[in-house]
Amino acid sequence: MLKGIPNILSPELLKTLHEMGHGDEIVIGDGNFPAANYANHLIRCDGHNVPDLLEAILELFPLDTFVNKPVTLMQVVDQQNEPIPEIWHKYKNILSIHQMDGSQIGYEERFDFYERSKRAYAIIATTEKALYANIILKKGVIS
Amino acid sequence: MLKGIPNILSPELLKTLHEMGHGDEIVIGDGNFPAANYANHLIRCDGHNVPDLLEAILELFPLDTFVNKPVTLMQVVDQQNEPIPEIWHKYKNILSIHQMDGSQIGYEERFDFYERSKRAYAIIATTEKALYANIILKKGVIS
Amino acid sequence: MLKGIPNILSPELLKTLHEMGHGDEIVIGDGNFPAANYANHLIRCDGHNVPDLLEAILELFPLDTFVNKPVTLMQVVDQQNEPIPEIWHKYKNILSIHQMDGSQIGYEERFDFYERSKRAYAIIATTEKALYANIILKKGVIS
Amino acid sequence: MLKGIPNILSPELLKTLHEMGHGDEIVIGDGNFPAANYANHLIRCDGHNVPDLLEAILELFPLDTFVNKPVTLMQVVDQQNEPIPEIWHKYKNILSIHQMDGSQIGYEERFDFYERSKRAYAIIATTEKALYANIILKKGVIS
Amino acid sequence: MLKGIPNILSPELLKTLHEMGHGDEIVIGDGNFPAANYANHLIRCDGHNVPDLLEAILELFPLDTFVNKPVTLMQVVDQQNEPIPEIWHKYKNILSIHQMDGSQIGYEERFDFYERSKRAYAIIATTEKALYANIILKKGVIS
Amino acid sequence: MLKGIPNILSPELLKTLHEMGHGDEIVIGDGNFPAANYANHLIRCDGHNVPDLLEAILELFPLDTFVNKPVTLMQVVDQQNEPIPEIWHKYKNILSIHQMDGSQIGYEERFDFYERSKRAYAIIATTEKALYANIILKKGVIS
Amino acid sequence: MLKGIPNILSPELLKTLHEMGHGDEIVIGDGNFPAANYANHLIRCDGHNVPDLLEAILELFPLDTFVNKPVTLMQVVDQQNEPIPEIWHKYKNILSIHQMDGSQIGYEERFDFYERSKRAYAIIATTEKALYANIILKKGVIS
Amino acid sequence: MLKGIPNILSPELLKTLHEMGHGDEIVIGDGNFPAANYANHLIRCDGHNVPDLLEAILELFPLDTFVNKPVTLMQVVDQQNEPIPEIWHKYKNILSIHQMDGSQIGYEERFDFYERSKRAYAIIATTEKALYANIILKKGVIS
Amino acid sequence: MLKGIPNILSPELLKTLHEMGHGDEIVIGDGNFPAANYANHLIRCDGHNVPDLLEAILELFPLDTFVNKPVTLMQVVDQQNEPIPEIWHKYKNILSIHQMDGSQIGYEERFDFYERSKRAYAIIATTEKALYANIILKKGVIS
Amino acid sequence: MLKGIPNILSPELLKTLHEMGHGDEIVIGDGNFPAANYANHLIRCDGHNVPDLLEAILELFPLDTFVNKPVTLMQVVDQQNEPIPEIWHKYKNILSIHQMDGSQIGYEERFDFYERSKRAYAIIATTEKALYANIILKKGVIS
Repeated sequence: MLKGIPNILSPELLKTLHEMGHGDEIVIGDGNFPAANYANHLIRCDGHNVPDLLEAILELFPLDTFVNKPVTLMQVVDQQNEPIPEIWHKYKNILSIHQMDGSQIGYEERFDFYERSKRAYAIIATTEKALYANIILKKGVIS
Repeated sequence: MLKGIPNILSPELLKTLHEMGHGDEIVIGDGNFPAANYANHLIRCDGHNVPDLLEAILELFPLDTFVNKPVTLMQVVDQQNEPIPEIWHKYKNILSIHQMDGSQIGYEERFDFYERSKRAYAIIATTEKALYANIILKKGVIS
Repeated sequence: MLKGIPNILSPELLKTLHEMGHGDEIVIGDGNFPAANYANHLIRCDGHNVPDLLEAILELFPLDTFVNKPVTLMQVVDQQNEPIPEIWHKYKNILSIHQMDGSQIGYEERFDFYERSKRAYAIIATTEKALYANIILKKGVIS
Repeated sequence: MLKGIPNILSPELLKTLHEMGHGDEIVIGDGNFPAANYANHLIRCDGHNVPDLLEAILELFPLDTFVNKPVTLMQVVDQQNEPIPEIWHKYKNILSIHQMDGSQIGYEERFDFYERSKRAYAIIATTEKALYANIILKKGVIS
Repeated sequence: MLKGIPNILSPELLKTLHEMGHGDEIVIGDGNFPAANYANHLIRCDGHNVPDLLEAILELFPLDTFVNKPVTLMQVVDQQNEPIPEIWHKYKNILSIHQMDGSQIGYEERFDFYERSKRAYAIIATTEKALYANIILKKGVIS
Repeated sequence: MLKGIPNILSPELLKTLHEMGHGDEIVIGDGNFPAANYANHLIRCDGHNVPDLLEAILELFPLDTFVNKPVTLMQVVDQQNEPIPEIWHKYKNILSIHQMDGSQIGYEERFDFYERSKRAYAIIATTEKALYANIILKKGVIS
Repeated sequence: MLKGIPNILSPELLKTLHEMGHGDEIVIGDGNFPAANYANHLIRCDGHNVPDLLEAILELFPLDTFVNKPVTLMQVVDQQNEPIPEIWHKYKNILSIHQMDGSQIGYEERFDFYERSKRAYAIIATTEKALYANIILKKGVIS
Repeated sequence: MLKGIPNILSPELLKTLHEMGHGDEIVIGDGNFPAANYANHLIRCDGHNVPDLLEAILELFPLDTFVNKPVTLMQVVDQQNEPIPEIWHKYKNILSIHQMDGSQIGYEERFDFYERSKRAYAIIATTEKALYANIILKKGVIS
Repeated sequence: MLKGIPNILSPELLKTLHEMGHGDEIVIGDGNFPAANYANHLIRCDGHNVPDLLEAILELFPLDTFVNKPVTLMQVVDQQNEPIPEIWHKYKNILSIHQMDGSQIGYEERFDFYERSKRAYAIIATTEKALYANIILKKGVIS
Repeated sequence: MLKGIPNILSPELLKTLHEMGHGDEIVIGDGNFPAANYANHLIRCDGHNVPDLLEAILELFPLDTFVNKPVTLMQVVDQQNEPIPEIWHKYKNILSIHQMDGSQIGYEERFDFYERSKRAYAIIATTEKALYANIILKKGVIS
């Protein structure tokens, strides 16, 4: 443990977030995300949910303000009938602390989301149980 | 994730608990325990406390009923003036679910506890903040 | 060994089943299946047959209910003259315990089956001697 | 699989038995034996019992006829009151096929048995549930 | 060494033959075959010739009876003027012990033979000096 | 790079500081310290001096307040004639920011310092040119 | 450390520069460059800026005089409105010491620069904060 | 060292030459050849020139007499104006000892030479300073 | 294969003999020697006997002429009644080619021979069937 | 290759010399020195003699001026009758360039020299043929 570092961030995760550069992406996958199969770097956070990780990560990790959509969610399949997933509200609250709002969130169709995840620098495997909880973060710059 | 397996148990931890045999020991260390330094097998559970892990582990892991003290805690340094650590009550409650009571808990002086940890099969690194939270479990038999 | 875990599931197999995600596939190959050649992750279960493994795996491993055919068998070559393989009846009995019936089984021509196996997350090598005993399972979600 | 090789012997186990030399020892441990902790070479045979492995191994593996006791069992703790373990009769039947009788079996006290296992060339982890089922075999010569 | 296993088969070669499945191929290359360059698994048998290895391998290794040509030789370049290589007679004698005759031998042009070797499960490097001595064996089933 | 993390701390160093526990020690060696020879974990910081690293490390790394001397320097050989090394004043200034004063610094004879370094969790190799610049830090607790 | 070698050059970096040949390229990336993601060989120089590394490297590393542009910078996006980056002046000064002038510098559009970096022999990760500070060096010959 | 083996041939180089087969190629690169970048197997011979290595290698290594050009040099760029490189005379003298003459040398344009080197079994890195000194040898047969 | 190198010497064995220095020892073990268990470097020569290897090795490998007994055999247990092993005559014939006679052969009691083998640089595992065939060679100098 | 670095120093050797610290030792062994057996880090320089390496190394590598004897040679066995080895004169000439004279050379009996070599940071294996050519260098400081 270190002073001022949220204790949910393991040494391995902290190192990974640190070594990522501008434009690199990290996926926080839910409990059923095929993380071990798709990840270039796999970081397991069993027993944790996505919002707790998102909150901790954003304390240290800058989002990319050079692109329009530094945050990406998995598109709801039946957009006309399915409500907006509950957990997205939590994400927006967390993002708002970092001067981000909903307009900066992009949406990717499920299989496109998978293909993009395979190219990401790292995937975090949580045991989040909410639907549509997977999220991709694009790293910004430290100036 | 698997049916009926507590989601706090990572694939690596589950494998480790499984491959241990009768008499092998596992340490659940608190957030300041020098786990990376002492462990033969290190399993990190950052962001978790000891009672949650203990509870999940004991669902699958049998304690050794052939010895008098299958559970070991780190002795309070100043036993006359320090109260019994709060977290021990939680441990006893969890143990009681598995037909264990306080008489089956042994106590090891701090540096003896360290030496014994170095010989353990594995050490789990949590970020538990309570004092005197380190605990050693000796595996029993599946019959 | 662990409480409540079928003893045919090795630590390595248990870890593998655990780390798979929604949509990942695992093949249980018979004794002549070229498992070592095709597998991304190879898990040997020498001395065991497929039904015993299938039964044990399904105690912990959810099948994918989002697709029509979460289970796949290798198509009988001469479908007009060859009888339905005996061992498939065993599979259907085991699947029925998990609310699956024959309509949820797909069939893949031999070489297509091989190609799909190469993309699977893992292949289990048994020493099953029955013909047409190879089977692919697609993992579902834990909710 | 190979012609004439019992299918319970995995490629890894077959290789291990082959590369052992005169005087090297192999332990077949029961389901609770701390095999992963003690083994120089660990070979897992989850789901199998000791007699099936013993029988298959002795088809290929010569016992040492230069020493008095090429086979070693773990001594019954309370020799006066505990009956001879049932499984030992099976062992003697299997050994008799290979011209070995009870006089060629040695007995080692539990902790001595452990220490000797740590020096063995390999340990096989079964999921045998019988008590006193651990057995050490000393390899003989092929002439 | 093991009872009944030809002593020319090393532990590594025995393991490799064992873990191959139906349809997998193994090449026995002569002393000038670029085995180290082409092999997925390389097994060196320096000081040995091909017939001795072929004879020993076929004691344990079933040939594929589901295909027309489970055995493949490298085509003689100038088929009109070059005699049939002497060593092929030895091969046919060895094959005849296993109910195989010349009609079950296929021939592959030199560079096609090389490409096929690169896809084989393993290549054995001998120091055979005869010309046209390279041979590919396709594994059959153990039933 | 991460928000709020001094940029002199590499991902590897940050991970190392994080995974250390209470009582573990880290050495910051000068440019001539035999770091590669003695280190259990070696972290190179070529081109940097010790005070810059010390300052950055102490922003995140708690010193051990349970012992009298959480900081250790290498004893000046000729204590009567050699002046107090200039660089020690810098160290004291940096330590004072963290409520440490000179009374909490211990001194270790050169070869004792070396032996202790060999047991440390990690050694940082700088290219510091000042004499007597090596320093050992003992990690404290995060509460 | 070695006589006459700038101390900012770590053993690993020195080895890398040494083993590169004529025409091989090395990238010195700024603090936000996705170095860990793109590099064939990654060399971290946390806490350092690009000019200091460039200066040290060119003491030992010959630039390629057989091509027109042995040095490459990342093109300014908005060339009409953005001024020439300050740091480029420093680069030109350093290059002038080695008989190089601005005419020997090429410019690569951002994403072309990234693709070329992925093919480079190595990437150095600095924590340089200036914009447009990334630079590619093509190695020349020692004659 | 061994009896009758030129001492310039290291154990690793000797092993590499030995395990190559008919038609495999080895490159002896000059001091500026990008050997580390292109090599499948890299063998460093720092401090040596190409003729000394060529001479030693050909004592043990047969050239391919089944092809027209078992030896390949890098084509002079400006063939009309550049003289024949001095070092080629040395090569021809060394080759003549092995019954090879200039007609058996092929020439490859620089970038074709590079592409072919990437497919070679091994590349030897010398510190030869002569121009056009790179040479590719194709292995022949031992009969 | 290489010109003038006996083809029984594999690339790995040749490399090992080469890298040994003055005073280093190599054991040629018979088929029952516990080579895999005792060897620092294990070299398998399955299917070969000891005299063929001894003969090939001594073509390249100098024996130590600075000691009295550069060759060591395993002492016959019952020296009074057992005849001199037949195979020793073969050894003496081979040694005589290299100006060695029986006076330069030492004898080591079985368990001393084992302990010495464990300290040897390498052990060669043959499948020699003769008794008392194990032999240790001490490397001499190339001058 | 790099500007100003002697070309006999390979990238690996340069890295090793660089990462050594004050008091670390490196051995330059002759062609019969058991370098592979004794070395913690082995660096082969086949085809080179000791004086050439010594000369190149000392251009970059400072000798320890804090001890009386930073250079160590292997004692002549029969000091009364054997002349001073010729090669030592070369060493002294090379050392004199670096302000060292014969008084700074220590001598170690053969087996003591071996034991000390085993503790050295690295051993360089040359193919030097002169007797008594082994030499140990103790690294000094860069100030």
